[in-house]
Amino acid sequence: MVIFQPSGIRGKVDDGVTIMEASRELGADIESLCGGKATCGKCRIKIEEGEFRKYGITSKIESVSPISEGDRKLLSKQQLRDNYRLACQTRIRGDVVIFVPEESRKGQQVIRKDAGARDIRLKPAVKKYHVTLTPATLHDNIGDFERLQTELAERFKLRELTIDYPVLLRLQNLVREDDWEVTVSVWKNREIINIESGQEGKSHGLAVDIGTTTVAGYLCDLSSGEVVATDAMMNPQVAYGEDVMSRISYSVKSEEGLRQLNQAIIKGLNQVAGRAAVKAGIKRSDIVDMTVVGNTCMHHIFLNIDPRYLGKTPFSPSVHHSLDIKARDLGIKISPGAYVHVLPIEAGFVGADNVGVLIAEEPYNQEETLLIIDIGTNGELILGNRNKLLSASCATGPAFEGAEIKHGMRAAPGAIERVKIDPKTKEVQFKIIGNERWSNGAKNLKARGICGSGIFDIAAQMFLAGIIDKSGRFSNRLKTPRLRKSGKELEFVIAWAKETSIEGDIVVCQSDIRAIQLAKGAMYAGGRVLMNRLGVDSIDRVILAGAFGSYIDRESAAVIGLFPDCDLENVYAVGNAAGDGARIALLNVDKRKEADIMARRVEYVELTVEPDFNNIFTQALLFPHMEDKFPHLKHILPENG
Amino acid sequence: MVIFQPSGIRGKVDDGVTIMEASRELGADIESLCGGKATCGKCRIKIEEGEFRKYGITSKIESVSPISEGDRKLLSKQQLRDNYRLACQTRIRGDVVIFVPEESRKGQQVIRKDAGARDIRLKPAVKKYHVTLTPATLHDNIGDFERLQTELAERFKLRELTIDYPVLLRLQNLVREDDWEVTVSVWKNREIINIESGQEGKSHGLAVDIGTTTVAGYLCDLSSGEVVATDAMMNPQVAYGEDVMSRISYSVKSEEGLRQLNQAIIKGLNQVAGRAAVKAGIKRSDIVDMTVVGNTCMHHIFLNIDPRYLGKTPFSPSVHHSLDIKARDLGIKISPGAYVHVLPIEAGFVGADNVGVLIAEEPYNQEETLLIIDIGTNGELILGNRNKLLSASCATGPAFEGAEIKHGMRAAPGAIERVKIDPKTKEVQFKIIGNERWSNGAKNLKARGICGSGIFDIAAQMFLAGIIDKSGRFSNRLKTPRLRKSGKELEFVIAWAKETSIEGDIVVCQSDIRAIQLAKGAMYAGGRVLMNRLGVDSIDRVILAGAFGSYIDRESAAVIGLFPDCDLENVYAVGNAAGDGARIALLNVDKRKEADIMARRVEYVELTVEPDFNNIFTQALLFPHMEDKFPHLKHILPENG
Repeated sequence: MVIFQPSGIRGKVDDGVTIMEASRELGADIESLCGGKATCGKCRIKIEEGEFRKYGITSKIESVSPISEGDRKLLSKQQLRDNYRLACQTRIRGDVVIFVPEESRKGQQVIRKDAGARDIRLKPAVKKYHVTLTPATLHDNIGDFERLQTELAERFKLRELTIDYPVLLRLQNLVREDDWEVTVSVWKNREIINIESGQEGKSHGLAVDIGTTTVAGYLCDLSSGEVVATDAMMNPQVAYGEDVMSRISYSVKSEEGLRQLNQAIIKGLNQVAGRAAVKAGIKRSDIVDMTVVGNTCMHHIFLNIDPRYLGKTPFSPSVHHSLDIKARDLGIKISPGAYVHVLPIEAGFVGADNVGVLIAEEPYNQEETLLIIDIGTNGELILGNRNKLLSASCATGPAFEGAEIKHGMRAAPGAIERVKIDPKTKEVQFKIIGNERWSNGAKNLKARGICGSGIFDIAAQMFLAGIIDKSGRFSNRLKTPRLRKSGKELEFVIAWAKETSIEGDIVVCQSDIRAIQLAKGAMYAGGRVLMNRLGVDSIDRVILAGAFGSYIDRESAAVIGLFPDCDLENVYAVGNAAGDGARIALLNVDKRKEADIMARRVEYVELTVEPDFNNIFTQALLFPHMEDKFPHLKHILPENG
Repeated sequence: MVIFQPSGIRGKVDDGVTIMEASRELGADIESLCGGKATCGKCRIKIEEGEFRKYGITSKIESVSPISEGDRKLLSKQQLRDNYRLACQTRIRGDVVIFVPEESRKGQQVIRKDAGARDIRLKPAVKKYHVTLTPATLHDNIGDFERLQTELAERFKLRELTIDYPVLLRLQNLVREDDWEVTVSVWKNREIINIESGQEGKSHGLAVDIGTTTVAGYLCDLSSGEVVATDAMMNPQVAYGEDVMSRISYSVKSEEGLRQLNQAIIKGLNQVAGRAAVKAGIKRSDIVDMTVVGNTCMHHIFLNIDPRYLGKTPFSPSVHHSLDIKARDLGIKISPGAYVHVLPIEAGFVGADNVGVLIAEEPYNQEETLLIIDIGTNGELILGNRNKLLSASCATGPAFEGAEIKHGMRAAPGAIERVKIDPKTKEVQFKIIGNERWSNGAKNLKARGICGSGIFDIAAQMFLAGIIDKSGRFSNRLKTPRLRKSGKELEFVIAWAKETSIEGDIVVCQSDIRAIQLAKGAMYAGGRVLMNRLGVDSIDRVILAGAFGSYIDRESAAVIGLFPDCDLENVYAVGNAAGDGARIALLNVDKRKEADIMARRVEYVELTVEPDFNNIFTQALLFPHMEDKFPHLKHILPENG
């Protein structure tokens, strides 16, 4: 018997499974950012000892495997003495009660991928046609399908139509059901993918953005273009690893790995489709078209393509082109004859999600030079204009999403999302998700950690307040109780224990700042290398894409040096542009072609083999940069900055 | 416990199943021509009474259901007293021993569908290409699929290729398995349907003719056109009904009916494919293309399309066009990415098999007027030339195949296939299948019944010998022991009991002659109506198609008046032209287009609504015809004929 506290979730599991596996099996969610590699330390739990009469068991530390190397590496001696262990490293050998501290509990992430408001010219791939056929007679007993073909050709100029095989099997009964009156759904003026008896109205399609962390679906009325329902969920693959690399390792680890990940996302998408359909008052099987974007890894796993080669040099994907695959072949439960259109990917990790951004923002139609930054678990860049487009992928690491940050967490309730530091008093004000007001006005909701946008603010505000210097080092001349020593390192308190729900202060330490520097340095260097390759000295506009981008304070991003100098007026967030791209491709079939052409036209720059990258990267580690001037930030930056 | 004798096959069955159902379940084949409708009487069996110690049971007549109406209709009073019953009408209620007389045992039909020798221009739909790809590097890490596309475009001008989704899933490993060297199978210069690592040689395809009674498969080397193996089998659907109409009834009878018939043929085709592959020394999965012909009903059931509308006016099929369907979607276990090309059907029962004949014989390229007669379980006619083509379907009934004939049987060992009658002595000579020599020289093999070609000979020879007159009536002036009374009717002995294995004489009775008259009259009338519609008085050539056609004596066919007058020199059999058509379409993709165009160009004539049909039919019941003169038969026909 295994019992998780405080949730009380319990059950029997096989001898030898890890506590993490047991938690997944029983539904007691424990946080895992590294996918079980004992590097993130987020899955810390405590083995309770004693007799638990309520459950009729005695829990002993001997009921789990001995302290592992991973435990020693990530937990302090005191924690080990207190029976803290890593859930991913500890195996169950008998009856045991496990306490999951709040910071190790997986929060329900706040999902804020709304459908952006954009003007899209309507030209869907699937259209409905309503026809009444001439019934067969002995003098005219041509086949039902040919009868339908003739009518569609005469009335709508639709020629050489084929028919989906399972639809053909239902054809005879359908035409006879309502006196030879039918409504036909035609895909790309080419194939009959659905038939309904009688006169039926609207067609619906689903645009899906498979993010590493979040999956968002936009159900659209194909005849009006309107979004009639949206639905989102955590990517169910998160249970198997937080980032792209840990999912690749998981899929390679065992024969079942890929299948599990694939089935998780397919099941998730079926849920998204189902719930969106319910919201819109239609049946899931009424959805006759679907478009999908996602980064290269999500793209591969969704298609059940082995992603192992994405994880090792030369990082080549299986396929770049867009694909049209029958929903039923993928296990997607919408209209059985429907196709799923998977947008093309660009190169390396610059995937179909970035192509979504591309066709949404259309830099290839602009005179101005645009830098599009998509900050997800991976950073992706596009730079260029109508003449030329370059792209790159930056190994920013997961710091911006809260991983590898001591008190980092996802954007879930309790996360500090905005921070202000008074440059004189060094006092901190913050705002947490789930609470409208700033700072410690929170009554019911206390801070649990810091999410991505909070991290941007903290780095910028600490720099502007002189708590850290240009090189990121903590100042040792400041007199404030918030700056203090912890072991050999300095740390800065963002929220005092009384303001938190984790029975301790929420702090930023030196290694957190280093992680931010590495992440932003990689992004900046990527942008700069692309500028060099394009031969430009300045950029006209910066577009922050990705759901996450909408929540970043652009000034904070500029101050830490996330991107080269640009007028802040021309820096803006476009929300989930990848999702918009999926929606645009859903509503306008010409944009699918455009995506294929443009994805190929974008020249991919592999940063790791660019000779100047390392040098630029090293300089970009500083706040905002070692040498580059930022004329547009002059009024903000400290004079020695 | 049910025991079948003399085979000894036994087992337990559910209470209340018919003896026919029990025989199918246990694998004791009992003949059934009418599909359980109590009209053919072929399934006569005997209930044995007594104690069977060997099996520890006592068999009683009370262990089966009482005498039914069907039994009374088809069995004599003596037979009923002797415990003979119809297997399809008698239900099992307890332990019983059932004797299956030889004439009720289902013989292994002689299957003689050889691949005809024809010159076919090679242009297969599937071709293999061998390429070596440039391995991916960091500077060139385009996807594996695009790498393959580029190579195929540059070397073979194959552009805009798509790829079968399951093949895409295997692509990455396949290209890396043999150092980026692969062999690619491309369908219609359009889709990659298979990839093998390394350099692979030949491609194979399977052409299939699904006859109502026989299924034949021709495995071809697509690069040489050669037939490398053939395989044939009884259509496994025969167990559910002998002819097209009884299969339609079976499929309509229950929800499971269609699925059972469909699965039977799919399983059968997989066996044919498997055995042919073994003979050719390849794997079944090496078969990368397949073509299928069959009459409209076989076509529908093979595709799992409900055939109910084929059985009732206005007899319209679900689809006429040719179809390309993934083998895996049909359950056909060849190369999983392969397509099955199903040839178009013409109209009504003039199906894809007839289209096979059409593209094999190409009447649309001839100056001469051809009459093509396909004698199967159903009769099909094509008449015309390069200017115009007409087709019709004749309800000949199954008489030509041995059904509805007292001693009729299929073309299996023991069947009388050729007959000569001395016009003076009225003595009979015959030849049976499985025996090289004529008449009673048979030592090991005795006659068991009469098959189709024997029936043609008998009718012609009896007419020429004056045993029957022009109207088909038995002469009552002849003095020969072979002509005798049986009840109120006359009958003519073809084989004496000592020459047979059925413990009795094999005879032809008046109603047999009537059945032949109805069948040949329908065929003749069909041909004549088509001639009227085409506006011709004579025909230049008659082609007897269908495996069966090869075994008919053309003089016998002409003498009974199967077709209007034609020089016997210009009457010939082409064997299984439908199968040839399938093979032609397999080897030459242009012929598939031709089939679609020509199937549409042929004008279908629904004989039942032609005003002159009944009159012509009535006249054609006579031997050879009431009024028509047969100048080319003048030297053969009796003077008063």
